[in-house]
Amino acid sequence: MLKLFDLAGADAARRFSPYCWRVRMALAHKGLEVETIPWRFTEKSVLAPSGQGRVPVLVHDNTWLHESWDIACYLEEQFADRPSLFGGMQGRALSRLHSNLADWLGGQIVRLIVLDVYDHLDARDKAYFRESREKRFGMTLEAVVADRDARLPALRDSLAPLRATLKGQPYFGGDRPLYADYALFGPLQWARCISPYRLLEADDPLALWRDRLLDAYDGLARAAPGYDA
Amino acid sequence: MLKLFDLAGADAARRFSPYCWRVRMALAHKGLEVETIPWRFTEKSVLAPSGQGRVPVLVHDNTWLHESWDIACYLEEQFADRPSLFGGMQGRALSRLHSNLADWLGGQIVRLIVLDVYDHLDARDKAYFRESREKRFGMTLEAVVADRDARLPALRDSLAPLRATLKGQPYFGGDRPLYADYALFGPLQWARCISPYRLLEADDPLALWRDRLLDAYDGLARAAPGYDA
Repeated sequence: MLKLFDLAGADAARRFSPYCWRVRMALAHKGLEVETIPWRFTEKSVLAPSGQGRVPVLVHDNTWLHESWDIACYLEEQFADRPSLFGGMQGRALSRLHSNLADWLGGQIVRLIVLDVYDHLDARDKAYFRESREKRFGMTLEAVVADRDARLPALRDSLAPLRATLKGQPYFGGDRPLYADYALFGPLQWARCISPYRLLEADDPLALWRDRLLDAYDGLARAAPGYDA
Repeated sequence: MLKLFDLAGADAARRFSPYCWRVRMALAHKGLEVETIPWRFTEKSVLAPSGQGRVPVLVHDNTWLHESWDIACYLEEQFADRPSLFGGMQGRALSRLHSNLADWLGGQIVRLIVLDVYDHLDARDKAYFRESREKRFGMTLEAVVADRDARLPALRDSLAPLRATLKGQPYFGGDRPLYADYALFGPLQWARCISPYRLLEADDPLALWRDRLLDAYDGLARAAPGYDA
């Protein structure tokens, strides 16, 4: 029995955490059913058994897990007879870079869409989100995104090494997606679920790769409430 | 019998191609002896049997190979009983990103050290190099590097995902280096062999990782003529 606390907006069906999406795709890769529980930023206390206050939190029987990377490693070991998320120990080590690049990419994207995130939040979360993010950025959410159109080309340029990788293979994991793909998909799916802002040109190899992942597992990610962006 | 055409400077012992270094480290990983042949940019004709004019070119018996990635894949297949460079097919696919990031890193570093490269070239190569590179950059070599001190902090910042990966493991390949490590080592070893300019702070996790690779295989890379930079 698997349960995932999954970040949600004012609309409980809108699930937009880039880290929760990594886990949902990893679970689908393993062919595992999961019950997702909508969770808001300010509901720290319900996560207490995990020993911290952020999602994703996965509950497997009576084991509480957090951190998307650690959850993926746990799933790989507990469900070792199912398709591998890493392709072995060396593949797991190599996937760390993909995961860290995904974190970096999320840090770039948030500067373009943080106000869209705010707009979709549940009323309970809005004050917390604005205060914590404005403190982090040292400016208002409106100021963070004010010049996003001017910054978008540099972000697209910076994705060249990712784009080049998809010239020779359909997925970062090769012929089929691996956790490395889900990690990098996370921030793009997050953006798609929360913002109408178009990050990628339609013919960008990264957009086409994202399309393949949106279609994977019976369109799990495409079916999620979001934008055609 | 293995022979590698290896880019050299005015001093034939100074070997500085980032792509040749990937291959030399991969050969050492496989425990293979290689004869390196100093080669200059303008000696295109000696590479003719490879069907193109750039190094690395590896000759194995009567097979001529080029492109560092393709050479690594060839070595992996031909010497499959020796330590793997990739850790399996999925590891190979995952390593593509490391290789492409290394290409990107080389493209950043050249903008800091291209004049140092020029200064170390054999007299035969200098006019060719200046003309081809000034055409590529649309400015003199002196202008390319003029503001390098101002651009260095941004380059160091952009390496954050690489640095983060080495927090949890000593090599990109895990407990031991893989081709992914040699690919990323290439541009740093290139810089070290050709330029006194210090790219990394001494306590940068990337510098410490580079140190481990400089010491690998009986200090193969550390013994190469270069700078303590």
